[in-house]
Amino acid sequence: MTNTTNAGTNTAGTTGTDGTTTTTAGSAARTVAAYAAPAPKAPLEKTVVPRRALGEHDILIDVRFAGICHSDIHQVGEDWGDGIFPMVPGHEIAGVVAEVGPGVTRWTVGDRVGVGCFVDSCRECDNCRAGLQQFCTGAGGTVFTYNGVGRDGEPTYGGYSSQLVVDEGYALRIPEALALDTAAPLLCAGITLYSPLSRWGAGPGKKVAIVGLGGLGHLGVKIAHAKGAEVTVLSQSLRKREDGLRLGADDYRATSDPAVFTELAGTFDLIVNTVSADLDLSAYLGLLTAGGTLVQVGAPEKPVTILAQALLTGGKSLSGSMIGGLPETQEMLDFCAEHQVTAEIELIRADQINEAYARVLASDVRYRFVIDASTI
Amino acid sequence: MTNTTNAGTNTAGTTGTDGTTTTTAGSAARTVAAYAAPAPKAPLEKTVVPRRALGEHDILIDVRFAGICHSDIHQVGEDWGDGIFPMVPGHEIAGVVAEVGPGVTRWTVGDRVGVGCFVDSCRECDNCRAGLQQFCTGAGGTVFTYNGVGRDGEPTYGGYSSQLVVDEGYALRIPEALALDTAAPLLCAGITLYSPLSRWGAGPGKKVAIVGLGGLGHLGVKIAHAKGAEVTVLSQSLRKREDGLRLGADDYRATSDPAVFTELAGTFDLIVNTVSADLDLSAYLGLLTAGGTLVQVGAPEKPVTILAQALLTGGKSLSGSMIGGLPETQEMLDFCAEHQVTAEIELIRADQINEAYARVLASDVRYRFVIDASTI
Repeated sequence: MTNTTNAGTNTAGTTGTDGTTTTTAGSAARTVAAYAAPAPKAPLEKTVVPRRALGEHDILIDVRFAGICHSDIHQVGEDWGDGIFPMVPGHEIAGVVAEVGPGVTRWTVGDRVGVGCFVDSCRECDNCRAGLQQFCTGAGGTVFTYNGVGRDGEPTYGGYSSQLVVDEGYALRIPEALALDTAAPLLCAGITLYSPLSRWGAGPGKKVAIVGLGGLGHLGVKIAHAKGAEVTVLSQSLRKREDGLRLGADDYRATSDPAVFTELAGTFDLIVNTVSADLDLSAYLGLLTAGGTLVQVGAPEKPVTILAQALLTGGKSLSGSMIGGLPETQEMLDFCAEHQVTAEIELIRADQINEAYARVLASDVRYRFVIDASTI
Repeated sequence: MTNTTNAGTNTAGTTGTDGTTTTTAGSAARTVAAYAAPAPKAPLEKTVVPRRALGEHDILIDVRFAGICHSDIHQVGEDWGDGIFPMVPGHEIAGVVAEVGPGVTRWTVGDRVGVGCFVDSCRECDNCRAGLQQFCTGAGGTVFTYNGVGRDGEPTYGGYSSQLVVDEGYALRIPEALALDTAAPLLCAGITLYSPLSRWGAGPGKKVAIVGLGGLGHLGVKIAHAKGAEVTVLSQSLRKREDGLRLGADDYRATSDPAVFTELAGTFDLIVNTVSADLDLSAYLGLLTAGGTLVQVGAPEKPVTILAQALLTGGKSLSGSMIGGLPETQEMLDFCAEHQVTAEIELIRADQINEAYARVLASDVRYRFVIDASTI
């Protein structure tokens, strides 16, 4: 973190790129340019959304880049429950501090910061105290970056916008060694893979399989490789095999070939499944060593069915993992800076968001769309 | 282990309690009295079965006590697949060494020994080398104590018999501090609970729930309590509440009361489910703390269905555990001796086995039937 002594409320003077953005000097509330879905499943369109006045410990961030996560599409589509509209998605946010509230001590104007999937939590429950803010059990729970409700009772709007106001404690430092555009997806996709790979000990001497080579999976390959594990990609086909090997995989196998499940039986210490589609998880459990773990990071819409015997034989685990808390997210960014792990991205203009959504649904992206926020 | 210098092939001269047992002196093959099911689902009846000649590293054990495990009934009933008949169940065996083969170094006549669920394995695969013989992946795999086929191609017959021949490496030392009758169930039920409680760190400062207070669960309560954890029993009703508290539980809750699932949400670091019946495992996952683990030690016949979200939220695990390897089984026996943990048993005569089976199926046993092998 950058130390700053009483930075006060500085106005960086950055405004949106066009007239729809109204930036008020100082700590006052403002409206900012954004791309929002006006209604469930509707195409995103340009609009303005409110940002609160800077509180004592708030910072104003000029968004530079925002990644497009598959879950953005699920939220807009209300696949996981009712949404709050207009909805401004985006929880893979990289930017620069533009203003700081009078009580802010961690940041100064110009600092490179990221915001991930949540912007507040109770700070007092066991999970918050343990640094697992994503599992806050306090009143109001984890406040997600968009499609959530803040402790002020107002809806939250995400990173597809020119500016963002967040509590200083919920921003992460993006090290200088990381470019902001390719770092943006680390804030969700990166931590989603880093956390289980760390928790279940991916490293030298360990064999790790990553199921699916998409936005999540490609970062899983890079991170597991950087951690020193032997990495195998398990993908439906060999279509992206060369990419996988280039990104750091030691092996790449097509799960459409049933022989893979006998040839690789008992091979992996850890399998991270990034695929939300229904898979025969009992078959994947068969690929684990005794004591091995299959971690779900994607959430299938249907309940998961497995044979208990596939867990009992070999003493195996089916686990879940959901992003990571603030300390681990910072650790991940520092790790990625040290090992030069960043996302493979396709940079787009804000007016290409709807097209990008269609391509994500068609699995036609290598490997993450990132919005250039200067075009919002 | 007891050290012995070239004990040679000693004949202890013990024979069965009646004329059906033919004990041949020395290392020759013999037939021994046993209770067997002659066909699937048939009542058990008295018979004789062969025991192999003592090999270089074999020991002959006079069975003193054999526990009745629910899985014995499943095996006789072919609930888990085809069985080999006649079938002599029994894998909770406590006895005394009666003879040793010429190459035996670990045991001498008179040693108190136990045999659990398996009597051989390949000894060369990764799992065998790691002491996880129950997950042997070598040729022939784990040889189970009954309803299995040994490396000599002959069927194995279990502990409902007067004598047993096993390789010296597959017997466990029963410490003097344990009585043989109440120690017998430790060889399966005990290790089944000890292993997950150890692996997932049941101990001081940890909250552990045991689902079901039966043959497995009552030992789970005792072991978790002895390890210093705070123990709650989750049972369908409060019928056995006083027993549970007497055995070491700190709390006892009826899961028939749906309020339990809200009151105890996020409470337990570890839940060990000893119940094979279908439970709503997603509801039980809700009782775990972040990072907590729900371990299945019973194998439901139907596939298990859970909501992936119940694993993702809180980063939880659904795991399986199946008995334990030889080193851990010995560790468990030593732990139980140190902490005076033994099974609560109802000692029966061999001619009461069928009646006992009926009572196990009716959950009418507190908490384990043990056969007095002198009555076989």
